[in-house]
Amino acid sequence: MFIYRHKIRTRYNHTDRMGYVYYGRYAEFFEEARVDALRSIGVSYKKMEEEGMYSPVITLRVNYYQPLYYDELITVEAIVPVMPTLRTKFIFKVYNEKGELTADGETSLVFVDGITRKPVRLPEVVEKAFEPFFTGN
Amino acid sequence: MFIYRHKIRTRYNHTDRMGYVYYGRYAEFFEEARVDALRSIGVSYKKMEEEGMYSPVITLRVNYYQPLYYDELITVEAIVPVMPTLRTKFIFKVYNEKGELTADGETSLVFVDGITRKPVRLPEVVEKAFEPFFTGN
Amino acid sequence: MFIYRHKIRTRYNHTDRMGYVYYGRYAEFFEEARVDALRSIGVSYKKMEEEGMYSPVITLRVNYYQPLYYDELITVEAIVPVMPTLRTKFIFKVYNEKGELTADGETSLVFVDGITRKPVRLPEVVEKAFEPFFTGN
Amino acid sequence: MFIYRHKIRTRYNHTDRMGYVYYGRYAEFFEEARVDALRSIGVSYKKMEEEGMYSPVITLRVNYYQPLYYDELITVEAIVPVMPTLRTKFIFKVYNEKGELTADGETSLVFVDGITRKPVRLPEVVEKAFEPFFTGN
Repeated sequence: MFIYRHKIRTRYNHTDRMGYVYYGRYAEFFEEARVDALRSIGVSYKKMEEEGMYSPVITLRVNYYQPLYYDELITVEAIVPVMPTLRTKFIFKVYNEKGELTADGETSLVFVDGITRKPVRLPEVVEKAFEPFFTGN
Repeated sequence: MFIYRHKIRTRYNHTDRMGYVYYGRYAEFFEEARVDALRSIGVSYKKMEEEGMYSPVITLRVNYYQPLYYDELITVEAIVPVMPTLRTKFIFKVYNEKGELTADGETSLVFVDGITRKPVRLPEVVEKAFEPFFTGN
Repeated sequence: MFIYRHKIRTRYNHTDRMGYVYYGRYAEFFEEARVDALRSIGVSYKKMEEEGMYSPVITLRVNYYQPLYYDELITVEAIVPVMPTLRTKFIFKVYNEKGELTADGETSLVFVDGITRKPVRLPEVVEKAFEPFFTGN
Repeated sequence: MFIYRHKIRTRYNHTDRMGYVYYGRYAEFFEEARVDALRSIGVSYKKMEEEGMYSPVITLRVNYYQPLYYDELITVEAIVPVMPTLRTKFIFKVYNEKGELTADGETSLVFVDGITRKPVRLPEVVEKAFEPFFTGN
Protein backbone atom coordinates (compact mmCIF):
# COMPACT_ATOMS: atom_id res chain seq x y z
CA MET A 1 0.00 0.00 0.00
CA PHE A 2 1.11 3.51 -0.74
CA ILE A 3 0.10 6.56 1.34
CA TYR A 4 0.87 10.22 0.76
CA ARG A 5 -0.31 13.14 2.89
CA HIS A 6 -0.89 16.48 1.23
CA LYS A 7 -1.68 19.79 2.96
CA ILE A 8 -4.03 22.33 1.40
CA ARG A 9 -5.27 25.61 2.79
CA THR A 10 -8.93 26.26 2.03
CA ARG A 11 -9.36 29.60 0.29
CA TYR A 12 -12.13 32.14 -0.08
CA ASN A 13 -12.77 31.05 -3.65
CA HIS A 14 -13.40 27.50 -2.39
CA THR A 15 -16.29 28.59 -0.19
CA ASP A 16 -19.93 29.03 -1.13
CA ARG A 17 -22.67 31.07 0.43
CA MET A 18 -23.45 28.25 2.87
CA GLY A 19 -19.98 28.99 4.28
CA TYR A 20 -18.80 25.51 3.27
CA VAL A 21 -16.12 24.50 0.80
CA TYR A 22 -18.12 23.87 -2.39
CA TYR A 23 -18.61 20.16 -3.08
CA GLY A 24 -17.10 20.35 -6.57
CA ARG A 25 -13.78 21.65 -5.23
CA TYR A 26 -12.88 18.28 -3.73
CA ALA A 27 -12.03 16.99 -7.23
CA GLU A 28 -9.31 19.68 -7.35
CA PHE A 29 -8.02 18.72 -3.92
CA PHE A 30 -7.83 15.08 -5.02
CA GLU A 31 -5.93 16.07 -8.16
CA GLU A 32 -3.39 18.08 -6.15
CA ALA A 33 -2.84 15.19 -3.76
CA ARG A 34 -2.54 12.68 -6.64
CA VAL A 35 0.05 14.68 -8.55
CA ASP A 36 2.12 15.44 -5.46
CA ALA A 37 1.90 11.80 -4.38
CA LEU A 38 3.44 10.80 -7.72
CA ARG A 39 6.05 13.54 -7.37
CA SER A 40 7.02 12.17 -3.95
CA ILE A 41 8.10 8.89 -5.58
CA GLY A 42 9.93 10.55 -8.43
CA VAL A 43 7.19 10.61 -11.07
CA SER A 44 6.46 13.92 -12.78
CA TYR A 45 2.99 13.86 -14.30
CA LYS A 46 3.92 16.92 -16.32
CA LYS A 47 6.90 15.11 -17.85
CA MET A 48 4.72 12.13 -18.64
CA GLU A 49 2.40 14.38 -20.62
CA GLU A 50 5.35 15.91 -22.42
CA GLU A 51 6.34 12.37 -23.39
CA GLY A 52 2.90 11.82 -24.88
CA MET A 53 0.99 10.10 -22.11
CA TYR A 54 -2.19 11.49 -20.56
CA SER A 55 -4.08 10.15 -17.59
CA PRO A 56 -7.76 11.09 -17.57
CA VAL A 57 -10.04 10.27 -14.63
CA ILE A 58 -12.74 7.72 -15.39
CA THR A 59 -14.55 7.58 -12.06
CA LEU A 60 -14.94 9.96 -9.16
CA ARG A 61 -16.69 9.31 -5.89
CA VAL A 62 -16.92 11.56 -2.83
CA ASN A 63 -18.71 11.11 0.51
CA TYR A 64 -19.12 14.28 2.51
CA TYR A 65 -19.42 13.65 6.26
CA GLN A 66 -19.04 17.17 7.56
CA PRO A 67 -18.22 20.52 5.96
CA LEU A 68 -14.85 22.14 5.50
CA TYR A 69 -14.72 25.85 6.26
CA TYR A 70 -12.72 28.86 5.15
CA ASP A 71 -9.01 29.07 5.93
CA GLU A 72 -8.47 25.60 7.34
CA LEU A 73 -5.20 23.77 6.79
CA ILE A 74 -6.62 20.45 5.68
CA THR A 75 -4.84 17.14 5.03
CA VAL A 76 -5.71 15.05 2.00
CA GLU A 77 -4.45 11.51 2.32
CA ALA A 78 -3.92 9.80 -1.04
CA ILE A 79 -3.81 6.03 -0.82
CA VAL A 80 -3.03 3.59 -3.63
CA PRO A 81 -4.47 0.36 -2.23
CA VAL A 82 -3.38 -2.05 -4.97
CA MET A 83 -0.59 -2.08 -7.51
CA PRO A 84 -1.79 -0.04 -10.53
CA THR A 85 -2.30 -1.98 -13.76
CA LEU A 86 -4.48 -0.64 -16.57
CA ARG A 87 -6.28 1.41 -13.96
CA THR A 88 -4.78 3.38 -11.13
CA LYS A 89 -7.08 3.60 -8.17
CA PHE A 90 -6.59 6.29 -5.55
CA ILE A 91 -8.52 6.46 -2.29
CA PHE A 92 -8.68 9.82 -0.53
CA LYS A 93 -9.34 10.80 3.05
CA VAL A 94 -9.87 14.43 3.91
CA TYR A 95 -9.12 15.66 7.43
CA ASN A 96 -9.88 19.12 8.79
CA GLU A 97 -7.53 21.15 10.97
CA LYS A 98 -8.73 19.34 14.10
CA GLY A 99 -7.80 16.01 12.52
CA GLU A 100 -11.40 14.89 12.00
CA LEU A 101 -12.25 12.85 8.92
CA THR A 102 -14.63 15.10 7.00
CA ALA A 103 -14.84 13.32 3.64
CA ASP A 104 -13.46 10.40 1.72
CA GLY A 105 -13.47 9.47 -1.91
CA GLU A 106 -11.92 7.67 -4.81
CA THR A 107 -10.74 8.26 -8.34
CA SER A 108 -9.78 5.76 -11.03
CA LEU A 109 -7.53 6.79 -13.86
CA VAL A 110 -6.33 5.20 -17.07
CA PHE A 111 -3.43 6.08 -19.28
CA VAL A 112 -4.05 7.13 -22.87
CA ASP A 113 -1.76 7.94 -25.74
CA GLY A 114 -1.56 11.73 -26.22
CA ILE A 115 -2.15 11.47 -29.97
CA THR A 116 -4.62 8.61 -30.42
CA ARG A 117 -6.25 9.11 -26.99
CA LYS A 118 -6.52 5.30 -26.84
CA PRO A 119 -5.79 3.42 -23.58
CA VAL A 120 -2.24 2.19 -23.13
CA ARG A 121 -0.61 0.10 -20.44
CA LEU A 122 0.86 1.60 -17.29
CA PRO A 123 4.01 3.59 -18.15
CA GLU A 124 7.15 1.79 -16.97
CA VAL A 125 8.24 4.78 -14.88
CA VAL A 126 5.01 4.62 -12.87
CA GLU A 127 5.21 0.85 -12.52
CA LYS A 128 8.78 0.97 -11.19
CA ALA A 129 7.94 3.80 -8.78
CA PHE A 130 5.02 1.94 -7.23
CA GLU A 131 6.55 -1.57 -7.18
CA PRO A 132 8.46 -1.21 -3.89
CA PHE A 133 5.20 -0.49 -2.08
CA PHE A 134 3.51 -3.65 -3.26
CA THR A 135 6.31 -6.21 -3.14
CA GLY A 136 5.68 -8.34 -0.09
CA ASN A 137 7.95 -11.14 1.04
CA MET B 1 -39.99 9.18 -11.86
CA PHE B 2 -39.06 12.76 -12.56
CA ILE B 3 -36.86 13.84 -15.48
CA TYR B 4 -35.57 17.28 -16.37
CA ARG B 5 -33.29 18.17 -19.29
CA HIS B 6 -30.89 21.07 -18.90
CA LYS B 7 -28.70 22.60 -21.61
CA ILE B 8 -25.23 23.93 -20.84
CA ARG B 9 -22.63 25.33 -23.19
CA THR B 10 -19.09 24.23 -22.33
CA ARG B 11 -16.83 27.24 -21.90
CA TYR B 12 -13.11 27.92 -22.18
CA ASN B 13 -12.76 28.04 -18.41
CA HIS B 14 -14.20 24.50 -18.23
CA THR B 15 -11.41 23.05 -20.35
CA ASP B 16 -7.99 21.86 -19.24
CA ARG B 17 -4.76 21.47 -21.16
CA MET B 18 -5.81 18.01 -22.32
CA GLY B 19 -8.52 19.84 -24.25
CA TYR B 20 -11.21 18.13 -22.17
CA VAL B 21 -13.76 19.61 -19.80
CA TYR B 22 -12.04 19.24 -16.40
CA TYR B 23 -13.48 16.36 -14.39
CA GLY B 24 -14.27 18.57 -11.38
CA ARG B 25 -16.58 20.80 -13.43
CA TYR B 26 -19.25 18.10 -13.70
CA ALA B 27 -20.26 18.81 -10.08
CA GLU B 28 -21.16 22.33 -11.22
CA PHE B 29 -23.13 21.00 -14.19
CA PHE B 30 -25.05 18.67 -11.86
CA GLU B 31 -25.81 21.57 -9.52
CA GLU B 32 -27.16 23.70 -12.38
CA ALA B 33 -29.37 20.87 -13.59
CA ARG B 34 -30.60 20.13 -10.07
CA VAL B 35 -31.59 23.70 -9.29
CA ASP B 36 -33.28 24.25 -12.64
CA ALA B 37 -35.07 20.90 -12.27
CA LEU B 38 -36.55 22.14 -9.00
CA ARG B 39 -37.41 25.48 -10.58
CA SER B 40 -39.30 23.67 -13.36
CA ILE B 41 -41.73 22.28 -10.77
CA GLY B 42 -42.12 25.53 -8.93
CA VAL B 43 -39.50 25.13 -6.21
CA SER B 44 -36.98 27.93 -5.76
CA TYR B 45 -33.89 26.65 -3.97
CA LYS B 46 -32.91 30.24 -3.29
CA LYS B 47 -36.20 30.93 -1.55
CA MET B 48 -35.80 27.77 0.51
CA GLU B 49 -32.47 29.04 1.77
CA GLU B 50 -34.00 32.40 2.56
CA GLU B 51 -36.57 30.52 4.65
CA GLY B 52 -33.78 28.87 6.59
CA MET B 53 -33.31 25.53 4.84
CA TYR B 54 -30.05 24.42 3.24
CA SER B 55 -29.45 21.33 1.16
CA PRO B 56 -25.84 20.16 1.20
CA VAL B 57 -24.63 17.29 -0.99
CA ILE B 58 -23.58 14.19 0.94
CA THR B 59 -22.46 11.93 -1.91
CA LEU B 60 -21.21 12.55 -5.43
CA ARG B 61 -20.39 9.94 -8.04
CA VAL B 62 -19.37 10.47 -11.67
CA ASN B 63 -18.43 7.98 -14.39
CA TYR B 64 -16.64 9.52 -17.36
CA TYR B 65 -17.12 7.51 -20.57
CA GLN B 66 -15.77 9.96 -23.09
CA PRO B 67 -14.56 13.55 -22.91
CA LEU B 68 -16.54 16.73 -23.42
CA TYR B 69 -14.81 19.39 -25.49
CA TYR B 70 -14.86 23.16 -25.77
CA ASP B 71 -17.99 24.97 -26.95
CA GLU B 72 -20.38 22.03 -27.05
CA LEU B 73 -24.05 22.50 -26.23
CA ILE B 74 -24.45 19.58 -23.85
CA THR B 75 -27.56 18.15 -22.23
CA VAL B 76 -27.60 17.20 -18.58
CA GLU B 77 -30.53 14.97 -17.72
CA ALA B 78 -31.50 15.14 -14.04
CA ILE B 79 -33.56 12.20 -12.87
CA VAL B 80 -35.20 11.71 -9.48
CA PRO B 81 -35.79 7.95 -9.46
CA VAL B 82 -37.67 7.65 -6.16
CA MET B 83 -39.79 9.99 -4.07
CA PRO B 84 -37.39 12.04 -1.90
CA THR B 85 -37.60 11.45 1.83
CA LEU B 86 -34.78 12.37 4.19
CA ARG B 87 -32.46 12.08 1.23
CA THR B 88 -33.02 13.37 -2.27
CA LYS B 89 -31.25 11.28 -4.85
CA PHE B 90 -30.57 12.67 -8.30
CA ILE B 91 -29.18 10.62 -11.18
CA PHE B 92 -27.50 12.52 -14.02
CA LYS B 93 -26.82 11.63 -17.63
CA VAL B 94 -24.59 13.88 -19.68
CA TYR B 95 -24.96 13.96 -23.46
CA ASN B 96 -22.68 15.74 -25.90
CA GLU B 97 -23.87 17.73 -28.89
CA LYS B 98 -24.10 14.57 -31.01
CA GLY B 99 -26.42 13.04 -28.43
CA GLU B 100 -23.88 10.50 -27.17
CA LEU B 101 -23.91 9.60 -23.48
CA THR B 102 -20.50 10.83 -22.27
CA ALA B 103 -20.89 10.55 -18.51
CA ASP B 104 -23.37 9.68 -15.82
CA GLY B 105 -23.45 10.27 -12.11
CA GLU B 106 -25.39 10.74 -8.95
CA THR B 107 -25.74 13.08 -6.00
CA SER B 108 -27.55 12.61 -2.71
CA LEU B 109 -28.63 15.60 -0.69
CA VAL B 110 -30.13 16.13 2.71
CA PHE B 111 -31.91 19.13 4.15
CA VAL B 112 -30.48 20.92 7.15
CA ASP B 113 -31.70 23.77 9.27
CA GLY B 114 -29.87 26.97 8.34
CA ILE B 115 -29.11 27.84 11.95
CA THR B 116 -28.42 24.52 13.66
CA ARG B 117 -27.15 22.81 10.50
CA LYS B 118 -28.89 19.65 11.76
CA PRO B 119 -30.82 17.39 9.35
CA VAL B 120 -34.50 18.11 9.00
CA ARG B 121 -37.27 16.36 7.11
CA LEU B 122 -38.06 17.13 3.49
CA PRO B 123 -39.66 20.60 3.23
CA GLU B 124 -43.35 20.40 2.45
CA VAL B 125 -42.98 22.52 -0.68
CA VAL B 126 -40.53 19.99 -2.13
CA GLU B 127 -42.66 17.06 -1.12
CA LYS B 128 -45.76 18.51 -2.77
CA ALA B 129 -43.86 19.39 -5.93
CA PHE B 130 -42.50 15.88 -6.39
CA GLU B 131 -45.60 13.93 -5.33
CA PRO B 132 -47.41 14.00 -8.71
CA PHE B 133 -44.44 12.23 -10.31
CA PHE B 134 -44.53 9.33 -7.90
CA THR B 135 -48.23 8.77 -7.39
CA GLY B 136 -49.11 5.71 -9.41
CA ASN B 137 -52.61 4.35 -9.74
CA MET C 1 -19.84 50.44 -32.14
CA PHE C 2 -20.89 46.89 -31.53
CA ILE C 3 -23.06 45.81 -28.58
CA TYR C 4 -24.12 42.34 -27.54
CA ARG C 5 -26.23 41.42 -24.51
CA HIS C 6 -25.65 38.08 -22.84
CA LYS C 7 -27.73 36.52 -20.04
CA ILE C 8 -26.12 34.43 -17.30
CA ARG C 9 -27.70 32.89 -14.25
CA THR C 10 -25.51 33.14 -11.15
CA ARG C 11 -24.95 29.72 -9.62
CA TYR C 12 -24.11 28.36 -6.19
CA ASN C 13 -20.54 27.66 -7.25
CA HIS C 14 -20.16 31.34 -8.16
CA THR C 15 -20.89 32.47 -4.61
CA ASP C 16 -18.50 32.79 -1.71
CA ARG C 17 -19.10 32.82 2.02
CA MET C 18 -19.83 36.54 1.95
CA GLY C 19 -22.88 35.56 -0.10
CA TYR C 20 -21.52 37.49 -3.10
CA VAL C 21 -20.49 36.21 -6.52
CA TYR C 22 -16.71 35.76 -6.12
CA TYR C 23 -14.75 38.56 -7.78
CA GLY C 24 -12.69 36.16 -9.90
CA ARG C 25 -15.79 34.76 -11.58
CA TYR C 26 -16.38 37.93 -13.57
CA ALA C 27 -13.54 36.95 -15.92
CA GLU C 28 -15.58 33.87 -16.83
CA PHE C 29 -18.71 35.95 -17.37
CA PHE C 30 -16.75 38.27 -19.67
CA GLU C 31 -15.42 35.29 -21.63
CA GLU C 32 -18.91 33.89 -22.12
CA ALA C 33 -20.20 37.24 -23.32
CA ARG C 34 -17.22 37.72 -25.65
CA VAL C 35 -17.54 34.33 -27.33
CA ASP C 36 -21.30 34.60 -27.73
CA ALA C 37 -20.90 38.15 -29.06
CA LEU C 38 -18.62 36.80 -31.79
CA ARG C 39 -21.03 33.94 -32.45
CA SER C 40 -23.86 36.46 -32.94
CA ILE C 41 -22.01 37.95 -35.93
CA GLY C 42 -21.08 34.60 -37.42
CA VAL C 43 -17.63 34.10 -35.92
CA SER C 44 -16.92 30.81 -34.16
CA TYR C 45 -14.00 31.20 -31.78
CA LYS C 46 -13.75 27.42 -31.60
CA LYS C 47 -13.38 27.17 -35.38
CA MET C 48 -10.72 29.88 -35.32
CA GLU C 49 -8.71 27.81 -32.87
CA GLU C 50 -9.14 24.75 -35.05
CA GLU C 51 -7.70 26.79 -37.89
CA GLY C 52 -4.65 27.58 -35.78
CA MET C 53 -5.45 30.96 -34.29
CA TYR C 54 -5.62 31.62 -30.55
CA SER C 55 -6.73 34.78 -28.82
CA PRO C 56 -5.25 35.21 -25.34
CA VAL C 57 -6.30 38.03 -23.05
CA ILE C 58 -3.57 40.58 -22.33
CA THR C 59 -5.37 42.94 -19.97
CA LEU C 60 -8.32 42.58 -17.62
CA ARG C 61 -9.95 45.29 -15.57
CA VAL C 62 -13.05 45.09 -13.38
CA ASN C 63 -14.75 47.69 -11.18
CA TYR C 64 -17.20 46.25 -8.68
CA TYR C 65 -19.91 48.73 -7.68
CA GLN C 66 -22.27 46.43 -5.85
CA PRO C 67 -22.42 42.68 -5.30
CA LEU C 68 -24.18 40.06 -7.37
CA TYR C 69 -26.03 37.41 -5.40
CA TYR C 70 -27.05 33.80 -5.85
CA ASP C 71 -29.55 32.84 -8.56
CA GLU C 72 -29.86 36.18 -10.32
CA LEU C 73 -30.42 36.35 -14.07
CA ILE C 74 -27.77 38.92 -14.89
CA THR C 75 -27.05 40.70 -18.16
CA VAL C 76 -23.50 41.14 -19.39
CA GLU C 77 -23.24 43.75 -22.09
CA ALA C 78 -20.20 43.29 -24.34
CA ILE C 79 -19.24 46.39 -26.27
CA VAL C 80 -16.56 46.72 -28.93
CA PRO C 81 -15.98 50.48 -28.96
CA VAL C 82 -13.50 50.70 -31.85
CA MET C 83 -12.76 48.57 -34.89
CA PRO C 84 -10.36 45.80 -33.74
CA THR C 85 -6.86 45.89 -35.22
CA LEU C 86 -3.93 44.11 -33.59
CA ARG C 87 -5.84 44.34 -30.34
CA THR C 88 -9.50 43.68 -29.77
CA LYS C 89 -10.89 45.71 -26.92
CA PHE C 90 -14.11 44.71 -25.21
CA ILE C 91 -15.90 46.80 -22.61
CA PHE C 92 -18.34 45.04 -20.31
CA LYS C 93 -21.25 46.26 -18.24
CA VAL C 94 -22.85 43.91 -15.75
CA TYR C 95 -26.48 44.44 -14.74
CA ASN C 96 -28.32 42.57 -12.00
CA GLU C 97 -31.88 41.29 -12.27
CA LYS C 98 -33.28 44.69 -11.29
CA GLY C 99 -31.36 46.29 -14.16
CA GLU C 100 -28.85 48.07 -11.94
CA LEU C 101 -25.28 48.43 -13.17
CA THR C 102 -23.28 46.42 -10.64
CA ALA C 103 -19.87 46.25 -12.32
CA ASP C 104 -18.06 47.20 -15.46
CA GLY C 105 -14.79 46.14 -16.97
CA GLU C 106 -12.61 45.65 -19.97
CA THR C 107 -10.47 43.03 -21.66
CA SER C 108 -7.94 43.41 -24.46
CA LEU C 109 -7.04 40.44 -26.60
CA VAL C 110 -4.49 39.74 -29.29
CA PHE C 111 -4.36 37.00 -31.87
CA VAL C 112 -1.47 34.56 -31.86
CA ASP C 113 -0.47 31.74 -34.16
CA GLY C 114 -1.38 28.40 -32.56
CA ILE C 115 2.05 26.90 -33.30
CA THR C 116 4.51 29.76 -32.82
CA ARG C 117 2.33 31.62 -30.29
CA LYS C 118 3.55 34.85 -31.90
CA PRO C 119 1.15 37.75 -32.49
CA VAL C 120 -0.55 37.83 -35.87
CA ARG C 121 -2.85 40.35 -37.48
CA LEU C 122 -6.62 40.26 -37.02
CA PRO C 123 -8.07 37.24 -38.86
CA GLU C 124 -9.99 38.27 -41.97
CA VAL C 125 -13.17 36.57 -40.79
CA VAL C 126 -13.19 38.73 -37.65
CA GLU C 127 -12.37 41.87 -39.59
CA LYS C 128 -15.23 41.31 -42.03
CA ALA C 129 -17.69 40.50 -39.26
CA PHE C 130 -16.95 43.70 -37.37
CA GLU C 131 -16.62 46.07 -40.35
CA PRO C 132 -20.33 46.81 -40.79
CA PHE C 133 -20.49 48.17 -37.24
CA PHE C 134 -17.70 50.68 -37.79
CA THR C 135 -18.34 51.89 -41.30
CA GLY C 136 -19.94 55.29 -41.01
CA ASN C 137 -20.97 57.41 -43.95
CA MET D 1 6.22 49.84 1.65
CA PHE D 2 5.22 46.30 2.50
CA ILE D 3 6.19 43.26 0.38
CA TYR D 4 5.23 39.63 0.80
CA ARG D 5 6.20 36.74 -1.45
CA HIS D 6 3.82 33.83 -1.84
CA LYS D 7 4.49 30.54 -3.65
CA ILE D 8 1.76 28.75 -5.60
CA ARG D 9 1.99 25.62 -7.70
CA THR D 10 -0.06 25.82 -10.89
CA ARG D 11 -2.48 22.91 -11.11
CA TYR D 12 -4.25 21.03 -13.88
CA ASN D 13 -7.53 22.71 -13.03
CA HIS D 14 -5.88 26.09 -13.57
CA THR D 15 -5.02 25.31 -17.18
CA ASP D 16 -7.19 25.75 -20.24
CA ARG D 17 -7.06 24.09 -23.63
CA MET D 18 -4.52 26.64 -24.85
CA GLY D 19 -2.21 25.06 -22.26
CA TYR D 20 -2.07 28.32 -20.33
CA VAL D 21 -3.25 29.13 -16.83
CA TYR D 22 -6.73 30.57 -17.42
CA TYR D 23 -6.78 34.35 -17.12
CA GLY D 24 -9.54 34.32 -14.51
CA ARG D 25 -7.46 32.26 -12.09
CA TYR D 26 -5.12 35.13 -11.34
CA ALA D 27 -7.79 36.68 -9.12
CA GLU D 28 -7.55 33.56 -6.95
CA PHE D 29 -3.75 33.79 -6.86
CA PHE D 30 -4.00 37.41 -5.79
CA GLU D 31 -6.44 36.50 -3.04
CA GLU D 32 -4.13 33.78 -1.70
CA ALA D 33 -1.18 36.17 -1.65
CA ARG D 34 -3.24 38.92 0.00
CA VAL D 35 -4.53 36.74 2.82
CA ASP D 36 -1.15 35.16 3.50
CA ALA D 37 0.49 38.59 3.39
CA LEU D 38 -1.88 39.72 6.17
CA ARG D 39 -1.22 36.49 8.08
CA SER D 40 2.53 37.18 7.91
CA ILE D 41 2.02 40.36 9.94
CA GLY D 42 -0.33 38.77 12.44
CA VAL D 43 -3.67 39.62 10.87
CA SER D 44 -6.16 36.79 10.35
CA TYR D 45 -8.69 37.73 7.72
CA LYS D 46 -10.86 34.86 8.89
CA LYS D 47 -10.91 36.21 12.44
CA MET D 48 -11.78 39.66 11.12
CA GLU D 49 -14.82 38.21 9.39
CA GLU D 50 -15.80 36.39 12.56
CA GLU D 51 -15.68 39.75 14.31
CA GLY D 52 -18.09 41.17 11.76
CA MET D 53 -15.83 42.85 9.21
CA TYR D 54 -15.74 41.91 5.54
CA SER D 55 -13.36 43.17 2.91
CA PRO D 56 -14.74 43.00 -0.62
CA VAL D 57 -12.65 43.82 -3.67
CA ILE D 58 -13.74 46.95 -5.53
CA THR D 59 -11.24 46.99 -8.40
CA LEU D 60 -9.16 44.35 -10.14
CA ARG D 61 -6.59 44.88 -12.85
CA VAL D 62 -4.29 42.33 -14.49
CA ASN D 63 -1.73 42.68 -17.27
CA TYR D 64 -0.65 39.39 -18.82
CA TYR D 65 2.83 39.56 -20.36
CA GLN D 66 3.46 35.89 -20.95
CA PRO D 67 1.61 32.70 -20.09
CA LEU D 68 1.98 30.51 -17.03
CA TYR D 69 1.98 26.79 -17.70
CA TYR D 70 1.03 23.63 -15.88
CA ASP D 71 2.94 22.58 -12.76
CA GLU D 72 5.11 25.64 -12.30
CA LEU D 73 6.06 26.84 -8.83
CA ILE D 74 5.23 30.51 -9.28
CA THR D 75 5.87 33.46 -6.97
CA VAL D 76 3.21 36.07 -6.37
CA GLU D 77 4.62 39.22 -4.84
CA ALA D 78 2.03 41.23 -2.90
CA ILE D 79 2.99 44.84 -2.36
CA VAL D 80 1.17 47.44 -0.30
CA PRO D 81 2.61 50.67 -1.68
CA VAL D 82 0.93 53.17 0.65
CA MET D 83 -0.50 52.99 4.15
CA PRO D 84 -4.08 51.67 3.85
CA THR D 85 -6.84 54.05 4.80
CA LEU D 86 -10.41 53.61 3.65
CA ARG D 87 -9.03 51.62 0.73
CA THR D 88 -6.31 49.02 0.85
CA LYS D 89 -4.38 48.85 -2.38
CA PHE D 90 -2.34 45.78 -3.25
CA ILE D 91 0.00 45.55 -6.23
CA PHE D 92 0.90 42.08 -7.49
CA LYS D 93 3.81 40.79 -9.53
CA VAL D 94 3.70 37.24 -10.82
CA TYR D 95 6.96 35.41 -11.56
CA ASN D 96 7.27 32.01 -13.23
CA GLU D 97 9.67 29.28 -12.13
CA LYS D 98 12.50 30.85 -14.13
CA GLY D 99 12.01 34.13 -12.24
CA GLU D 100 10.55 35.99 -15.23
CA LEU D 101 7.82 38.57 -14.59
CA THR D 102 4.83 37.11 -16.41
CA ALA D 103 2.02 39.33 -15.15
CA ASP D 104 1.28 42.15 -12.78
CA GLY D 105 -1.89 43.57 -11.35
CA GLU D 106 -3.69 45.39 -8.63
CA THR D 107 -6.68 45.08 -6.33
CA SER D 108 -8.34 47.67 -4.14
CA LEU D 109 -10.40 46.61 -1.18
CA VAL D 110 -12.65 48.36 1.31
CA PHE D 111 -13.91 47.22 4.68
CA VAL D 112 -17.63 46.82 5.27
CA ASP D 113 -19.67 45.97 8.31
CA GLY D 114 -20.79 42.33 8.14
CA ILE D 115 -24.39 43.19 8.99
CA THR D 116 -25.07 46.51 7.28
CA ARG D 117 -22.55 45.91 4.46
CA LYS D 118 -21.75 49.62 4.66
CA PRO D 119 -18.14 50.86 4.41
CA VAL D 120 -16.30 51.28 7.68
CA ARG D 121 -12.86 52.64 8.52
CA LEU D 122 -9.76 50.45 8.51
CA PRO D 123 -9.89 48.03 11.47
CA GLU D 124 -7.39 48.95 14.17
CA VAL D 125 -5.69 45.58 14.02
CA VAL D 126 -4.90 46.10 10.33
CA GLU D 127 -3.77 49.67 10.91
CA LYS D 128 -1.37 48.66 13.68
CA ALA D 129 0.02 45.76 11.66
CA PHE D 130 0.84 47.95 8.65
CA GLU D 131 2.08 51.04 10.52
CA PRO D 132 5.69 49.87 11.06
CA PHE D 133 6.14 49.55 7.29
CA PHE D 134 5.10 53.13 6.58
CA THR D 135 6.65 55.02 9.45
CA GLY D 136 9.72 56.74 8.11
CA ASN D 137 11.95 59.02 10.12
